[in-house]
Amino acid sequence: MSQPESAVPKKKVLFRGRSNAAVANSNAEGEDSPEFEPFGPMPRGLPPLAEYLDIREVNMVNDINKKEHHTSLFSNALLIVRRAQEFQIRVTFNRAYEPAKDQFLLEFVIGSSPQMSKGTYIPVFPDPEKTRAWRGRVLDSMDNMVTVGITPAPDCIVGRFRTYVAVITPFGIRRTRRDSKRDVYVLFNPWASDDAVFLKEEEERGEYVLEESGILYHGEASDISARPWNFGQFEYGVLDACLYVMDRAQMPIVNRGDPIKVARKASAAVNSRDDDGVLVGNWSGDYSFGVAPTSWTSSVEILVTYASSRQPVNYGQCWVYAAVFNTFLRCLGIPARVVTNFYSAHDNDGNLKTDIILDEAGKVDRGRTKDSIWNYHCWNECYMTRPDLPQGFGGWQVVDATPQETSDGLYRCGPASVQAIKHGQICFPFDAPFIYAEVNSDVVFYKRDQSGNVVPVKVNSTHVGRKVLTKAIGRDQYDDITSQYKFAEGTEEERTVLQKAEEYGMGRTKVNYPETDVQVEILAQEVSVGDNFKLALEFKNLSGEQRTVNAFVNGYVVYYTGVTSDEVKSKTLTVTLDPWQTERVSVDVQADDYMSRLVEQCNLHFIVTGRVEQDSQIVSAMRVITLHVPELVVKVIGEPRVSELTLVSVEFTNPFQFSLDNVYLRMDGPGLMSPKIKHFSLISPKASEIWSDSFTPRRAGPTKLMVTLDCAALRQVYSQVVVNVKP
Amino acid sequence: MSQPESAVPKKKVLFRGRSNAAVANSNAEGEDSPEFEPFGPMPRGLPPLAEYLDIREVNMVNDINKKEHHTSLFSNALLIVRRAQEFQIRVTFNRAYEPAKDQFLLEFVIGSSPQMSKGTYIPVFPDPEKTRAWRGRVLDSMDNMVTVGITPAPDCIVGRFRTYVAVITPFGIRRTRRDSKRDVYVLFNPWASDDAVFLKEEEERGEYVLEESGILYHGEASDISARPWNFGQFEYGVLDACLYVMDRAQMPIVNRGDPIKVARKASAAVNSRDDDGVLVGNWSGDYSFGVAPTSWTSSVEILVTYASSRQPVNYGQCWVYAAVFNTFLRCLGIPARVVTNFYSAHDNDGNLKTDIILDEAGKVDRGRTKDSIWNYHCWNECYMTRPDLPQGFGGWQVVDATPQETSDGLYRCGPASVQAIKHGQICFPFDAPFIYAEVNSDVVFYKRDQSGNVVPVKVNSTHVGRKVLTKAIGRDQYDDITSQYKFAEGTEEERTVLQKAEEYGMGRTKVNYPETDVQVEILAQEVSVGDNFKLALEFKNLSGEQRTVNAFVNGYVVYYTGVTSDEVKSKTLTVTLDPWQTERVSVDVQADDYMSRLVEQCNLHFIVTGRVEQDSQIVSAMRVITLHVPELVVKVIGEPRVSELTLVSVEFTNPFQFSLDNVYLRMDGPGLMSPKIKHFSLISPKASEIWSDSFTPRRAGPTKLMVTLDCAALRQVYSQVVVNVKP
Repeated sequence: MSQPESAVPKKKVLFRGRSNAAVANSNAEGEDSPEFEPFGPMPRGLPPLAEYLDIREVNMVNDINKKEHHTSLFSNALLIVRRAQEFQIRVTFNRAYEPAKDQFLLEFVIGSSPQMSKGTYIPVFPDPEKTRAWRGRVLDSMDNMVTVGITPAPDCIVGRFRTYVAVITPFGIRRTRRDSKRDVYVLFNPWASDDAVFLKEEEERGEYVLEESGILYHGEASDISARPWNFGQFEYGVLDACLYVMDRAQMPIVNRGDPIKVARKASAAVNSRDDDGVLVGNWSGDYSFGVAPTSWTSSVEILVTYASSRQPVNYGQCWVYAAVFNTFLRCLGIPARVVTNFYSAHDNDGNLKTDIILDEAGKVDRGRTKDSIWNYHCWNECYMTRPDLPQGFGGWQVVDATPQETSDGLYRCGPASVQAIKHGQICFPFDAPFIYAEVNSDVVFYKRDQSGNVVPVKVNSTHVGRKVLTKAIGRDQYDDITSQYKFAEGTEEERTVLQKAEEYGMGRTKVNYPETDVQVEILAQEVSVGDNFKLALEFKNLSGEQRTVNAFVNGYVVYYTGVTSDEVKSKTLTVTLDPWQTERVSVDVQADDYMSRLVEQCNLHFIVTGRVEQDSQIVSAMRVITLHVPELVVKVIGEPRVSELTLVSVEFTNPFQFSLDNVYLRMDGPGLMSPKIKHFSLISPKASEIWSDSFTPRRAGPTKLMVTLDCAALRQVYSQVVVNVKP
Repeated sequence: MSQPESAVPKKKVLFRGRSNAAVANSNAEGEDSPEFEPFGPMPRGLPPLAEYLDIREVNMVNDINKKEHHTSLFSNALLIVRRAQEFQIRVTFNRAYEPAKDQFLLEFVIGSSPQMSKGTYIPVFPDPEKTRAWRGRVLDSMDNMVTVGITPAPDCIVGRFRTYVAVITPFGIRRTRRDSKRDVYVLFNPWASDDAVFLKEEEERGEYVLEESGILYHGEASDISARPWNFGQFEYGVLDACLYVMDRAQMPIVNRGDPIKVARKASAAVNSRDDDGVLVGNWSGDYSFGVAPTSWTSSVEILVTYASSRQPVNYGQCWVYAAVFNTFLRCLGIPARVVTNFYSAHDNDGNLKTDIILDEAGKVDRGRTKDSIWNYHCWNECYMTRPDLPQGFGGWQVVDATPQETSDGLYRCGPASVQAIKHGQICFPFDAPFIYAEVNSDVVFYKRDQSGNVVPVKVNSTHVGRKVLTKAIGRDQYDDITSQYKFAEGTEEERTVLQKAEEYGMGRTKVNYPETDVQVEILAQEVSVGDNFKLALEFKNLSGEQRTVNAFVNGYVVYYTGVTSDEVKSKTLTVTLDPWQTERVSVDVQADDYMSRLVEQCNLHFIVTGRVEQDSQIVSAMRVITLHVPELVVKVIGEPRVSELTLVSVEFTNPFQFSLDNVYLRMDGPGLMSPKIKHFSLISPKASEIWSDSFTPRRAGPTKLMVTLDCAALRQVYSQVVVNVKP
């Protein structure tokens, strides 16, 4: 029983007395099973094996299996099946199989140190009466060929299994030599009612599992932009990259059948913090050592680069994290979608307040205001049962791979039940209070008086979590799913939920301020980058008396994270309102004010705060104006056909008075091409450039071709065209 | 509003657009507040401040405050108070304070970027009507001296605050210059009914907050050893080290008032994994680069070394983690105790099974058995309300700082409500399923048949979590608290809890094996290391027929983690039992069999497995025999008095035939000394050594002097004597 010292791996030396075996946490590793395993001491010479079955051929029946298991779309030569659903393997022997006399079995093995009790070694006998975890039966037996039907357990491990066929003889077990071409990927199965990720409607599975192109919503709640994305979960190399993500994160193999654990682990592993995961976050504006987050078109390039370079990929921001995570989930068979929350409270670790400090005059004190509200934030939802929670909290679960500074101290988030968040039942794992705060925080305005004393003067409880959107099923439009996160404002249910959440420690700020009878609003409008425009304010006097408002209008360039860069506008207004009067006031904003100061995604944040002379009441309003960027004109020439060269052109005109340097264009499309990149070192003011290129579609059917343009002075420029590839 | 580029700290460059300000996460950092803060543009020349109050002296009234706040035991010159309880500060002005005319306030500030709304800047006016978070009032005003009573909020941040006294003038605020001698530590308050860590009974607070020496239980469930430990939470440097632990783990200051978050963070920060926390784990037997886990006597040396070296300390195992964590919690004022769970299931990520694989003959297959059960495992409980959970789950909470391989993928654990674990309500955070499994796992025996098929043949559901112990209040004995973790075996409640846990996904193995009518037990016995002894087995035939048992007896040297080292005994027995007969059989074990193979803590693990000839039923039994180590004889000479030199001697005799090399002795005692170390390079066979030394007690009262001896061949040798120091 003594083990030689050298058998102990060096790096594990601190754990010699700690555990019997290292936890198997790599799908890529694992020993080949021996071709002959004797039962006891062998007689001299070769055993008389001739009379026993001999295996001539093993056929994985790829075409039928992949069609029935909804895995035909994968660009992958190996068999891919889904659990809880029968697939077939055809074995040819040297002679006819005689059940009364012959004994054979199929073995599926994953990772190192396989054990039956851990579900990492799975013997399947062609006999339903010998069913252990996976069921086996003879579907057909003809001449020397036996077709075996195999049904993986509905909770079995997901990943790449090694397949063996073994024959039992009185002397030992003879098995086929390892052949990686016989490996089989087993995935989650949203089509099987006893799988934890079962989804009832075929059209839902079509969108949330099989759809490769998607839309990421961003911009502002009343001025929404829709960016196309190639999830590409079936593209060549993506499935292996997804398994590598789990291997790299050292996720124990035994946990990989549980969609809760897989989603939670991946929420950590899609970002590079803590664990050298897929994407490095960067919000600095300087992307010289990688690709700008706005430049990507597809998860494919990111995942495949990660798996081949074995290094985190530069760079991501929230929608990139969400898009890559979505690919990961759909690829493994967990139904998933990207959602966008407009005005998302952040960095406050489940605190339900975002603080804005006003100075004595009522103007925002930028130096003292530290919190920020993201204009939008993207995360994912994935669909699964939650046996770890009381009934009623299955269904869509929030997961978020964007590294947030203080979510329970770690860079991962979820899964948290959307139902639980809606009902304020935030006592259940994982990270529900944090997500609840992202959609429900109050914006609290404080006034700082002379003695440094800070008192809350106004609470806006509707600004945060204004709108939650996701792409609709089968259409390029959004579904407003805000009502899945919260009850309608002012309803009885809403009050009950707030109370419930408060019981769980989500304290709210109570402010006793006089009812306001003067209101101000910044009106929504669409503005293109480079335009001069008039910011429209509407003041309303709801009282029967005259009111005079002294207001400050301030405009700032902001990152989409709500972090403020330069001030571009500052104006003081005095507006006198007659009883019950509504008055519109406009403030001129010149392109010159902001053009040289723009950062990243061209957002201007306007805040109006003011005080009513007659009674000192505070009025305030905020709005982000998203500056629309110029368009790309994408043209596909002719009718694309499978395996035929197709021409495409992309045209872009620089609308500005200044030149654009170091411009990258990217083109991509599921089933159409691998990502293509085009670089222009300079596009002169008002100049047009055309990029002509070609591609060869790989499969028939409708798909999308997407193009992005990105340079330091101009980001989030993109376009897409629907392409219907003929066979 | 534009910020110069150089104002952006270099290391944060990736987050420039990410957040307005870095999250304050260091108590050690923070800017001094200015001595004069003008309200607006100042008139030329010095302002006429003479007529306003001028501060001459600030007295922190240490003696009274510390006595009333139960912090007198701290070896720390600064003021230490507990929240939700009034303390006083005495301010001397240049003239008498006139409330109608003069305005002054006290300010308490913690960390960088202090904000009132975050509780990091706290103004306190000497006027209950101006109460914000903390209440202030004038307790006494006499001549030029005002005594202010200050009551910190019951949920305020815990840590070291900077204190200022500020006078408000029409021109601005004048405040005292920063003086670190006026810093005040604010701690949790188990004496205050509105603090989340309130504990009702004075004797409980005496043990779980104020008691500095403790006992760590180890060994085997029926042969328990009690190791003394100096928690030393009041020793010089320990409080600052505990704050450093949170700073080093980058715990946001705003979270440091919540005992749930503090305990959770510390469960990660007490081990070095992930975050360069306090202690490096080492179970290898090779401790050449540090101190052997068995050698420590005290948390003080570990914490103070960590804080001064700013490097993780070598080395810890579970009881060291638990002891240091206990010091941390008691030091900050969170009631805490160390508990020991005998036969603790591990490394199975909330799986409720520990698998033991038997070969065809019924003998344990060591090569295929990967799981291990720790002979014992130490963790902590801390006492607090749980507002984040439904009612009824407050009270004792499990936290565990030992880095376990797969607790939700991260090296931290808890707090998990002990009540929730007892009732199977494992759906609530944090990590309840993992702890539930540690006390409730089944041991499943599998038999592996010829074709490699593995079937469960026997389940032992009572082996794991046999006993949970903690030191009793005010006595050096243990309290058996097993019933706080589980209902009695066989009760209706027990069955309900198992069902409940099963609903939450903690599946159990159901085995249909015939009722056994033959039982075997390994009888408990006390053995000293170096003894020859007879292992006593008891076979019982509960049937009316004759039974013949073919049994294998195997003995292994094991680490306390259950990991098996060498086999030391292997014997085959055949026992024939008449109807209803009980038969005792003994197996000789010679010192020579095991002495040269012992590892670490001298445990021998015996397993008996066998099969009954008549009906093939499987019988099995397991027991760990802890080998008792020789004693240290510690003598304190004379009657120790405060500040007087006292002599002490430690005597040890090597009972073995071989010499002991590189022997370290350590001596320690709360209030008596800093740890002393003595090294013997060799103690010859049968030789005695005496270590004579001296110490000077620092305070009066009963305390303990503890000594350990440690070398590679002999660990867990210790002794303690009660010392009553006269004033």
